[in-house]
Amino acid sequence: MAKPLLGHRSMEDDPSITPAASRTIGVLGSGDFARSLAIRLVCSGFKVVVGSRNPKRKAGLFPSAAEVTFQAEAVKKTDVIFVAVFREHYSTLCDLADVLVGKILVDVSNNIEINHHKESNAEYLASLFPACTVVKGFNVVSAWTLQSGARDGNKQVLICSNNQEAKRTIAEIAQVMGFTPVDMGCMSSAREIENIPLHLLPAWKIPIFLALGLFLCFFTYNLIRQVIHPYIREQKNKLYKIPIEVVNTTLPCVAYVMLSLVYLPGVLAACSQLYYGTKYRRFPDWLDQWLQHRKQIGLLSFFCAALHAMYSLCLPMRRSHRYQLIETAVKQAVEKKMNIWVEEEVWRMEIYISVGIIALGLLSLLAITSLPSIANSLNWREFSFIQSTLGFIALVISTLHTLTYGWSRAFDENQYKFYLPPTYTLTLLVPCTVILAKVIFSLPCIQQRLLRIRRGWEKGRYVKFVLPSATGEYSSGETSSNV
Amino acid sequence: MAKPLLGHRSMEDDPSITPAASRTIGVLGSGDFARSLAIRLVCSGFKVVVGSRNPKRKAGLFPSAAEVTFQAEAVKKTDVIFVAVFREHYSTLCDLADVLVGKILVDVSNNIEINHHKESNAEYLASLFPACTVVKGFNVVSAWTLQSGARDGNKQVLICSNNQEAKRTIAEIAQVMGFTPVDMGCMSSAREIENIPLHLLPAWKIPIFLALGLFLCFFTYNLIRQVIHPYIREQKNKLYKIPIEVVNTTLPCVAYVMLSLVYLPGVLAACSQLYYGTKYRRFPDWLDQWLQHRKQIGLLSFFCAALHAMYSLCLPMRRSHRYQLIETAVKQAVEKKMNIWVEEEVWRMEIYISVGIIALGLLSLLAITSLPSIANSLNWREFSFIQSTLGFIALVISTLHTLTYGWSRAFDENQYKFYLPPTYTLTLLVPCTVILAKVIFSLPCIQQRLLRIRRGWEKGRYVKFVLPSATGEYSSGETSSNV
Amino acid sequence: MAKPLLGHRSMEDDPSITPAASRTIGVLGSGDFARSLAIRLVCSGFKVVVGSRNPKRKAGLFPSAAEVTFQAEAVKKTDVIFVAVFREHYSTLCDLADVLVGKILVDVSNNIEINHHKESNAEYLASLFPACTVVKGFNVVSAWTLQSGARDGNKQVLICSNNQEAKRTIAEIAQVMGFTPVDMGCMSSAREIENIPLHLLPAWKIPIFLALGLFLCFFTYNLIRQVIHPYIREQKNKLYKIPIEVVNTTLPCVAYVMLSLVYLPGVLAACSQLYYGTKYRRFPDWLDQWLQHRKQIGLLSFFCAALHAMYSLCLPMRRSHRYQLIETAVKQAVEKKMNIWVEEEVWRMEIYISVGIIALGLLSLLAITSLPSIANSLNWREFSFIQSTLGFIALVISTLHTLTYGWSRAFDENQYKFYLPPTYTLTLLVPCTVILAKVIFSLPCIQQRLLRIRRGWEKGRYVKFVLPSATGEYSSGETSSNV
Repeated sequence: MAKPLLGHRSMEDDPSITPAASRTIGVLGSGDFARSLAIRLVCSGFKVVVGSRNPKRKAGLFPSAAEVTFQAEAVKKTDVIFVAVFREHYSTLCDLADVLVGKILVDVSNNIEINHHKESNAEYLASLFPACTVVKGFNVVSAWTLQSGARDGNKQVLICSNNQEAKRTIAEIAQVMGFTPVDMGCMSSAREIENIPLHLLPAWKIPIFLALGLFLCFFTYNLIRQVIHPYIREQKNKLYKIPIEVVNTTLPCVAYVMLSLVYLPGVLAACSQLYYGTKYRRFPDWLDQWLQHRKQIGLLSFFCAALHAMYSLCLPMRRSHRYQLIETAVKQAVEKKMNIWVEEEVWRMEIYISVGIIALGLLSLLAITSLPSIANSLNWREFSFIQSTLGFIALVISTLHTLTYGWSRAFDENQYKFYLPPTYTLTLLVPCTVILAKVIFSLPCIQQRLLRIRRGWEKGRYVKFVLPSATGEYSSGETSSNV
Repeated sequence: MAKPLLGHRSMEDDPSITPAASRTIGVLGSGDFARSLAIRLVCSGFKVVVGSRNPKRKAGLFPSAAEVTFQAEAVKKTDVIFVAVFREHYSTLCDLADVLVGKILVDVSNNIEINHHKESNAEYLASLFPACTVVKGFNVVSAWTLQSGARDGNKQVLICSNNQEAKRTIAEIAQVMGFTPVDMGCMSSAREIENIPLHLLPAWKIPIFLALGLFLCFFTYNLIRQVIHPYIREQKNKLYKIPIEVVNTTLPCVAYVMLSLVYLPGVLAACSQLYYGTKYRRFPDWLDQWLQHRKQIGLLSFFCAALHAMYSLCLPMRRSHRYQLIETAVKQAVEKKMNIWVEEEVWRMEIYISVGIIALGLLSLLAITSLPSIANSLNWREFSFIQSTLGFIALVISTLHTLTYGWSRAFDENQYKFYLPPTYTLTLLVPCTVILAKVIFSLPCIQQRLLRIRRGWEKGRYVKFVLPSATGEYSSGETSSNV
Repeated sequence: MAKPLLGHRSMEDDPSITPAASRTIGVLGSGDFARSLAIRLVCSGFKVVVGSRNPKRKAGLFPSAAEVTFQAEAVKKTDVIFVAVFREHYSTLCDLADVLVGKILVDVSNNIEINHHKESNAEYLASLFPACTVVKGFNVVSAWTLQSGARDGNKQVLICSNNQEAKRTIAEIAQVMGFTPVDMGCMSSAREIENIPLHLLPAWKIPIFLALGLFLCFFTYNLIRQVIHPYIREQKNKLYKIPIEVVNTTLPCVAYVMLSLVYLPGVLAACSQLYYGTKYRRFPDWLDQWLQHRKQIGLLSFFCAALHAMYSLCLPMRRSHRYQLIETAVKQAVEKKMNIWVEEEVWRMEIYISVGIIALGLLSLLAITSLPSIANSLNWREFSFIQSTLGFIALVISTLHTLTYGWSRAFDENQYKFYLPPTYTLTLLVPCTVILAKVIFSLPCIQQRLLRIRRGWEKGRYVKFVLPSATGEYSSGETSSNV
């Protein structure tokens, strides 16, 4: 039951106990945000006075509990004023400068672009009203969140100001409204706060460019092999293959390579720990970044795999497929060839389709457990089992899918168009490296060493080291720099 | 890690500091809700006394920490009593009227239907026990939520009563139990509170009826064109087409039209703002309602599109497809016609299938980001980019899919059965209107005007107006009623 | 907006008001967990001193606000010390025993296996440092949650200790850090707490084994009928059918039977209530367990159904399908048989495919509403409507799918291989029982009785009983043991 209860008061702070809630709050402005702010303040138990240039026309927009009056009247009645107007209208408030002396102005504005102006909106407001205390806050909260109540992810309200007292006041108001205030420091943080809601999926930029880059590379490669080569060598027009067949041989390459790129950084990190013999050495920045983007890379891999499944399933729907089928049948009928069964071809397709569906099923499990609500209900062991163990199994099964699809074509001369190998051979490079590395890491000697390093052992340091054994007993040993 | 920890106490309110938690709470009743209530009260640190008509038989159902005794005994020991019995048993409690004088009774009951009785259950209870204070509360919480701990969406507990003190007491108890109490006012709100858990997906009623209505209309239209017309004109029995082919030409129409109906209200709102020259004029109720139901309309559109994809993919599976294929092959073999390749047909299918899969992929992104846990992790700019921008791109690509599917059939006389145009032409009306309107809105003059209106400019009002320019500088201008 | 705000302080507890936040906390250790702990403590406003064996080398890993020094120095400065080292290194801290006297040690360690050692890590630590107070806590929180901020599901921190004061202190610290402390009792609970993060999807074990068991049974049955029987009786090699066709006739059986097993316990529970004539009798343990695992059984059923759909859709893709199609066409062409249309076969496939897709669509709705974030936004009536009502409709439609797929094959002698009936007949047993039972329960006399029992009526007890009627009026009646 997640509907907002407008007009009703949360009882978490009783006005008779908490003076903050009997405070009068002023709101300047009459747009969407001002309206949502007024609604929320009223629901939280505050007295609200809205200052508008046209109180009579705008009164209908606001809840009845809020008093809508002229701007000058409104600011006289309160000490805290939310300035819910656009930056370009700040100067229109200069007439109120006298009345605003000594009051707290809360700048809730946002810009359209990152670093749109030389100074932040809050600093500009402060320069216009030097006798007031300006606090930057509430800009990361949307009007919808204000109206409908704070949800878990949107509960944080970032606040900064040069004045500690004012910050505390606004923080208390935010808490009563049901938000979690976070102190961001002085006014110099205002620019950073104003940039935060303008970020557009920052964690996805690199993975998306990576996917697009891989797509373009493999698409060109497949185009050359499947369309350009038949045209140049045999004068056959295979252009019709571009919308579905070329795309459908490109998407699985992107999905497969990206899936291996999810598990490669883990392998590199383990190599780094084995080489330096310690876990306390920081990874290079690029490896750190790569490790943090694994989830996005994995989800893009699943998206491409799902599209590949859709394209594959619609291959028999197409008119070109129908025409080719009928042509083959007619040719065989005319030649009266009755038996055309090639057992190897049949087995090849049965196996690689079946294995491909299993791989897609496992990848969908990984994608579903990435959803925030499900990931939060899993503990570390469960999450690690699904993402690491099941994920690696999915990588192995995808490799079987690729190998079975390719079958013996890598050894068939005809498959080398312009001396270019079949595409599937290129995609096998990174995944097979990852699988080989994981197999090597599972050898007892390497696994033991890695476990020791991860439990604190460091190469070259003389330290009395103990390892937990399978029975729970300890086996201790002195280690020196030669181990 | 989201398991409830039964038998363990949350430490957020230490009993030695908060007297509320050492309170004794009574529960009358021995059903599921009474049991869950007792479990939760015990976990929250309260002493619990359960009053039952058969304490010996019912004791096994309750946690050991709760004392199970006769009803008269139980009510003597406490001041606050949760009446966890069905409304029809309230009268059986009248024997306890003397002992209950001056105590707080909490009515937690629910009904089976909305407005099932003349007066709400709480008012009925109050009429039976005029010497007690009745508080309505906890009825929106399910027994499962009580046992397993409050989750984010189910945390709210609605409370109403004529007595402020009693309301405060019950609110404190709710807080200690981990819920968020919300004050709903006086006892007259009890009926509204009792109706709340009986609502059945209220936001979905209109979109579902809309989808069903569109489905019936298009289904009838397609039935006439694909089954009835061949029967009347050519005496061909095409009834077998009804389960899959007619359904599969209806579902995409419903999906496509509903997708355009998601973006049409935005266009109408922009038109309204342009016409009246202000953003402060309230939209008509029907437009407001329509804007609020866009998410449900969009999700239904995606559901129909996904079913359409399933039906399309299984077209080659069917026995009718197989028979038609073999018939064509046999006819061609008998006539010894070798080459049947029609390049235009091949290209038509390749393109419209490929484009259709891309549209479905984009729509699935929109559907996934509608999930509450993901929507909450996006900021406004990200959410707007995905739902507005990507969504409009999905609408454009769906239009390409429809146009390529239709190809030149709108200009082919034979396609007009009973003078009815091909179905796809009908579906293009609303989407093309929306796309055209959006294109017009992106023209610089219209876009500037819309931006001005959304930044506060009003037609007919003389106001010194400034616009943010691309460089962050301001261009001001005096505006008068002629602009 | 869910990013952590490192370096910024939550303002929920102002240091000038809450002494706890100006406390100095010590952290021993320099691994991932120690680092995440230090970051979170700094963000929460505490002064942090980190004790490491190599302060100079490790300082770079920690936030600048945390002071990194030698272990002996660090423990002198604080009263509360988080011991973030592995169990096997506890003995290395014995040198600090003198300095640690009277301080609170927080054991945050985890093990690799459940019950790995004879005593819990916390008890072991307490035995090494008898002069200190040991508190077990924070082990259920992952390093990632510490860094990124507490989410709803991961907010609980389990604490136990023999010392109440120490427990309260650590609980306050946990609250300031944004977690919800839960009191688990004395040190004897430490073992239980240490086992909690080691559980691996405990609710899924039984359903997964059930699914695997059903899969093996049906797979063997289908293998005998589809591969072994043709080989023995007709010497036909049908081994190629194993990867896709045999799997694709097994998966729907597993899905269908498991779907019926979701609704069977409800039927058994209702039977139990009708038989004993009361709702207050506890169900047997196995029925209770079964009722609690319904969600997992249902999700596995949906997963198998989705895989079945994928396998079915790729049947026309296969080379075997193509060869069979061409063979049939060639044979017909040679025999010049033009018309091969079998109306019954066509209708059979059209209906069962269409009905199957509808069933899958309904099951996907059930799966989606099982997601935590969506389930939490539904009230009880909505959840019950979707899971019970829509779910039962899905079961009925799946039964239609199975019956239409089977059609008249159960009456065809040739379908009985080795006298084994067609597989689909076996799968119909449990679902038809469930559907029949639900139909019987909906008969007015049985439905009334069940409703009476669920509203509190008990067979054999003389009680004045009232039932709510459709008009909201009450119909009372005396009931005696004969009813």
